[in-house]
Amino acid sequence: MNTNRSCCSPQTKYNLVQVKGTWIRQTEQCQVQEGKLSDATVCETKSEDGVTWTVVSPVVFTYRVVQCKNLLDPRNDTLLWGHIGDEELKGTLSNSKPVKRFVVIDETVHELYGSQVFQYFEARGVVHRILPLPTTEENKCMELVTKILEDVHVFGLDRRSEPIIAIGGGVCLDVVGLAASLYRRRTPYIRVPTTLLSYVDASVGAKTGVNFAGGKNKLGSYVPPVATFLDCSFFHTLPKRQISNGLAEMLKMALMKHRGLFQLLEADGRKLLNTKLQCCATGRSSEQEDSASASIRIAIETMLEELAPNLWEDDLDRLVDFGHLISPELEMRVLPALLHGEAVNIDMSFMTYVAHQKGLLRTDEKDRIIQCMLGLELPVWHQDCTLVLVQKSLKERLKHSAGSLRMPLPTGLGKAEIFHDMIEDNVLCQAYQKWTDELSSSGNK
Amino acid sequence: MNTNRSCCSPQTKYNLVQVKGTWIRQTEQCQVQEGKLSDATVCETKSEDGVTWTVVSPVVFTYRVVQCKNLLDPRNDTLLWGHIGDEELKGTLSNSKPVKRFVVIDETVHELYGSQVFQYFEARGVVHRILPLPTTEENKCMELVTKILEDVHVFGLDRRSEPIIAIGGGVCLDVVGLAASLYRRRTPYIRVPTTLLSYVDASVGAKTGVNFAGGKNKLGSYVPPVATFLDCSFFHTLPKRQISNGLAEMLKMALMKHRGLFQLLEADGRKLLNTKLQCCATGRSSEQEDSASASIRIAIETMLEELAPNLWEDDLDRLVDFGHLISPELEMRVLPALLHGEAVNIDMSFMTYVAHQKGLLRTDEKDRIIQCMLGLELPVWHQDCTLVLVQKSLKERLKHSAGSLRMPLPTGLGKAEIFHDMIEDNVLCQAYQKWTDELSSSGNK
Repeated sequence: MNTNRSCCSPQTKYNLVQVKGTWIRQTEQCQVQEGKLSDATVCETKSEDGVTWTVVSPVVFTYRVVQCKNLLDPRNDTLLWGHIGDEELKGTLSNSKPVKRFVVIDETVHELYGSQVFQYFEARGVVHRILPLPTTEENKCMELVTKILEDVHVFGLDRRSEPIIAIGGGVCLDVVGLAASLYRRRTPYIRVPTTLLSYVDASVGAKTGVNFAGGKNKLGSYVPPVATFLDCSFFHTLPKRQISNGLAEMLKMALMKHRGLFQLLEADGRKLLNTKLQCCATGRSSEQEDSASASIRIAIETMLEELAPNLWEDDLDRLVDFGHLISPELEMRVLPALLHGEAVNIDMSFMTYVAHQKGLLRTDEKDRIIQCMLGLELPVWHQDCTLVLVQKSLKERLKHSAGSLRMPLPTGLGKAEIFHDMIEDNVLCQAYQKWTDELSSSGNK
Repeated sequence: MNTNRSCCSPQTKYNLVQVKGTWIRQTEQCQVQEGKLSDATVCETKSEDGVTWTVVSPVVFTYRVVQCKNLLDPRNDTLLWGHIGDEELKGTLSNSKPVKRFVVIDETVHELYGSQVFQYFEARGVVHRILPLPTTEENKCMELVTKILEDVHVFGLDRRSEPIIAIGGGVCLDVVGLAASLYRRRTPYIRVPTTLLSYVDASVGAKTGVNFAGGKNKLGSYVPPVATFLDCSFFHTLPKRQISNGLAEMLKMALMKHRGLFQLLEADGRKLLNTKLQCCATGRSSEQEDSASASIRIAIETMLEELAPNLWEDDLDRLVDFGHLISPELEMRVLPALLHGEAVNIDMSFMTYVAHQKGLLRTDEKDRIIQCMLGLELPVWHQDCTLVLVQKSLKERLKHSAGSLRMPLPTGLGKAEIFHDMIEDNVLCQAYQKWTDELSSSGNK
């Protein structure tokens, strides 16, 4: 029984060709009809129990990440049509039936920008519904998704041409992304990040999600937005702590793969923080790129490099997981004491000590990293990040990563490697001890 | 403002290359480093507002559809390891840590096969949890998904190597598929269809879903199972009406693209129904394929041909939508009076009259189709399928298909075309009148 899937079983690989609207399978050897060839294949193996078909089907995801200015100025087309690359299609759509848009906006953002958003759609003659929601980490759950879905359903959307727009921080973008990916199995959506963190992080990838059963982002999907619109003028109204929060994810990319970005954050971190990364993406006679623009651009470029080839995280070895092995557990435990980027930074700070203990980082490199973090006014230690929590988190990681730890660690400034074996207990303990000795007095935030 | 995305704006296309675990972007012209090349690309356009990145990222879905015998016999490996093609990996996994499986089974199926399923996992020494659920069309909602997720979470699974197994009809497979696709953003799952309908339909594709706000499958995802295991011995315990129900979806594929399958169903339909399509996939000294095996095989082959190249339904022109333009509305309205295949058949019957009225089918062809349906003991007319309902359904279709009706219609026996324009009102009315005149006496089921 079931021993007949040997190498001699007759196996046939079929390509798929579309002829007059009907898909037909053909072998390489015997191409009867001409037509559009699919990238998908069906492989057939016959045995005495019946047939086994193996389907290999690539699905292509395309999305745009667009930096722009004055996004909420009614003269600016971007919010309505920036997701469409094809100018001709844009023209057709904007001139046909009344345009409809459903907008989900974070409550706090709504207080600050709600009237501008309203005026934008009014001025453009768009049939719209603006739904403000309390999109905090504590509320990030399936009920919020259901609330959005109910309202979307009542409002009514063309699932192909009327994207749902999310305006807010990472939680808002994640929750709306999940709702959109579920509605009619996929409704296009647009991300408008209003925090630095979501600008450089949630905006760039395909992940959506909500918390479930006390676990961070335990439910979700991998469906990218059709577009993300990046307008850094939203940072004006952010408290400074929120800027630090975003700088933590930028520092992650710097530590993992870009020495130049690390040097920028090390040299200009405090200035970036105090000026809230303004001037970014402005021309300045476009001669010299300022450090705000450069650091944001590099952060996004490096993120895209790592995310685009691994959109559905089929590859478990991910540099972008740095800072995200211990922090989910820590963040959920102390909620709302720590912001996401702060929890990530505490994780990165500890891992820097692990890397140092393993001999991957020199002492001066470790110290420069910690100094840079302090310069960005990020917490580098937390009393609730205990050794027990660290060990528990790493065991969880091991369980869900097909038996390998896959831990990214810095191996210098701006370079890193993935380590597969569990960290030896003594290395972990010594790193933890040194981390606590050196940094516990830096103060809990 | 925003006029600077002209053809002369500097655009750069980057490939992505993985060097020592880090992804690096490179232009075609300037390939500095060697490494694994991704199929994904990032295209960069600069303007004075900032940068626009366009990400194109193909995600490859692979899944197996496996016909087998004696699936629940503990000596058969398939249920535990049939989703893995690689014999070596199979050996490694089955010999490592204790194997865990979470099984969701339809309540009725559980009454009939629950003890066999239990004994299978007991005999194989598998840590298991079997969750029987009332997976009926009326219960097909998000609450059922949440119930599964809560239990899965408590049970604990390695999201990479411990697939959730769904055993039941289409509703069960759809609901479990959605739960699995949400859990940790994607947990592998396996489909074991126990009805003929789900064997030839839900099993083969990537769609998952639940009903929402009175609409059929309004929420869902496109995530294929890792494998589907097809054992036609489950049909033994099906009531005859359930066999007819499945034959409707097979007839759909026959009408759309396979004259041979139509002839089989026309000639042997009643026999297939009475023998519950047994003998399928048995050897019979493998000389001659019996009509049960042949009709099932062709139904699956033709389904795979249409689904594999269009897994995420990016192409809106779909032959497999035949019978699914009016039926969702009808099915939800008369629930539970009609089974899915019955509602589909009523839709197909009406559409046959539309095709005839449009001059696409000759009268003898129309009559042969209707006779074939009656031979399969399928309803061909229903009092609740009113002209108003038909018109409403087609308008909905128009709204959600980017302004085109995309209506598949038979243009002969076993061939079809997609029609884009709205059917003229008089054609629709005349077809409806003739349909009612000729078939209303055939009786409501």
